[in-house]
Amino acid sequence: MEEINNIEVVPCTESDYLKPFRVHYNQNGTKKSWDFMRTHDSVSVLIFNTTSHCFVLVKQFRPAVYMCEWEKAKTQPPQAAEKSEEGAAEAAAPEPQEGQAASEGDSSSPWPPASAGVTYELCAGLVDKPDLSLEEIARQEVLEECGYDVPASKLKRITSYRSGVGVTGAKQTMFYAEVSDDNCVSAGGGEPREGELIEVVKVPLHEAMTFAYNERIPKTMGVIFSFIWFHNNMSPKYKISTNV
Amino acid sequence: MEEINNIEVVPCTESDYLKPFRVHYNQNGTKKSWDFMRTHDSVSVLIFNTTSHCFVLVKQFRPAVYMCEWEKAKTQPPQAAEKSEEGAAEAAAPEPQEGQAASEGDSSSPWPPASAGVTYELCAGLVDKPDLSLEEIARQEVLEECGYDVPASKLKRITSYRSGVGVTGAKQTMFYAEVSDDNCVSAGGGEPREGELIEVVKVPLHEAMTFAYNERIPKTMGVIFSFIWFHNNMSPKYKISTNV
Repeated sequence: MEEINNIEVVPCTESDYLKPFRVHYNQNGTKKSWDFMRTHDSVSVLIFNTTSHCFVLVKQFRPAVYMCEWEKAKTQPPQAAEKSEEGAAEAAAPEPQEGQAASEGDSSSPWPPASAGVTYELCAGLVDKPDLSLEEIARQEVLEECGYDVPASKLKRITSYRSGVGVTGAKQTMFYAEVSDDNCVSAGGGEPREGELIEVVKVPLHEAMTFAYNERIPKTMGVIFSFIWFHNNMSPKYKISTNV
Repeated sequence: MEEINNIEVVPCTESDYLKPFRVHYNQNGTKKSWDFMRTHDSVSVLIFNTTSHCFVLVKQFRPAVYMCEWEKAKTQPPQAAEKSEEGAAEAAAPEPQEGQAASEGDSSSPWPPASAGVTYELCAGLVDKPDLSLEEIARQEVLEECGYDVPASKLKRITSYRSGVGVTGAKQTMFYAEVSDDNCVSAGGGEPREGELIEVVKVPLHEAMTFAYNERIPKTMGVIFSFIWFHNNMSPKYKISTNV
């Protein structure tokens, strides 16, 4: 359970992480401008543990997600959100997560509970080491974040795509890694020195499709897509529930 | 075919679109900071034309994607990229698109060809009209970008998820819309007043899975995921090739 407090938001005039640029250009003779940010490409890894027949995800507090929910809570009181036509699963107010007391979300407080900023994600990392192959970078992330030591050669490339096409446009490459309990060499959890506070979570294979489409569980599209990719491509090898 | 020239990049000190903030907070007693950007939630729509049995996508020049490729071209000459261990489909140099002369990519130029910034995407838009439901906003985007007039009630919600969890954390909600040629009331193409230069493209159903996993075709994960969602959920109704 994350405890978040002493929150203060300030404008960010200079950042090591967010570097806005503006590009002026002519498109088919029309003068245009666009604001964008430089960023790194990234890799993500769907990890399947063949011993426990579980997917291995990471769960972490994401300040950007939390601030989104805070913005919504400011403009839309929880009562109104609950009655919105989007239905209960889409309430703008943060949903209580598993294991969290509903009373934690004090509706009179301007700040949503910490769970509003927690997301389930694939193990992932930035491509910021020019000497390493994508597979090698993915391998390091699997080790650092999830504690499994697998050779880069065991990473199967799923596909690649563009993310944040409006702002960053970086390329993301997704891999699949089969691991076993024998490959588990540490608890994972990321690099505390880099400020990572990552929880490693397992999703049993038979719950994967329900998990993927449960909108009460905040997650990235990578989780949903990769679970379905597994279902379509690995199902001859591993049985996965399809009653969704 | 897009023609892009007179490109100039400048630092962006103030932007109506990119608004960086910094949040200071305590997480489980540890003082932390994070730079993020405020942004709107968004909707995207998988459009299937039941007359022509085609998916309807949008294709546009994305400056952020283009600048990514430009950065890569600066640090990695095309020759080196082609010989990288990632294989041909992953060459950092932009791939020639269908119908585009390979000669357009002049390797001696510092700027990649315009095609390096063109991506295939689902019809999509920002949730920036507080009075409208997500379905109504999605309906407007289908009309403006793709020229199909369908009632909001015909939009089927697929799921929702978080995007850009490191920087923006916005929520994206994906819909499915079945349209027919009878619903087509204009050519689409977006709002030229808003600077949109959008090309509406059709992907035949029988080519969809090949399209989804062809890494030479630059696209968002939304395209890949939604095609596979359709394959899994609509295949009893519509036949889709599965030989991938």
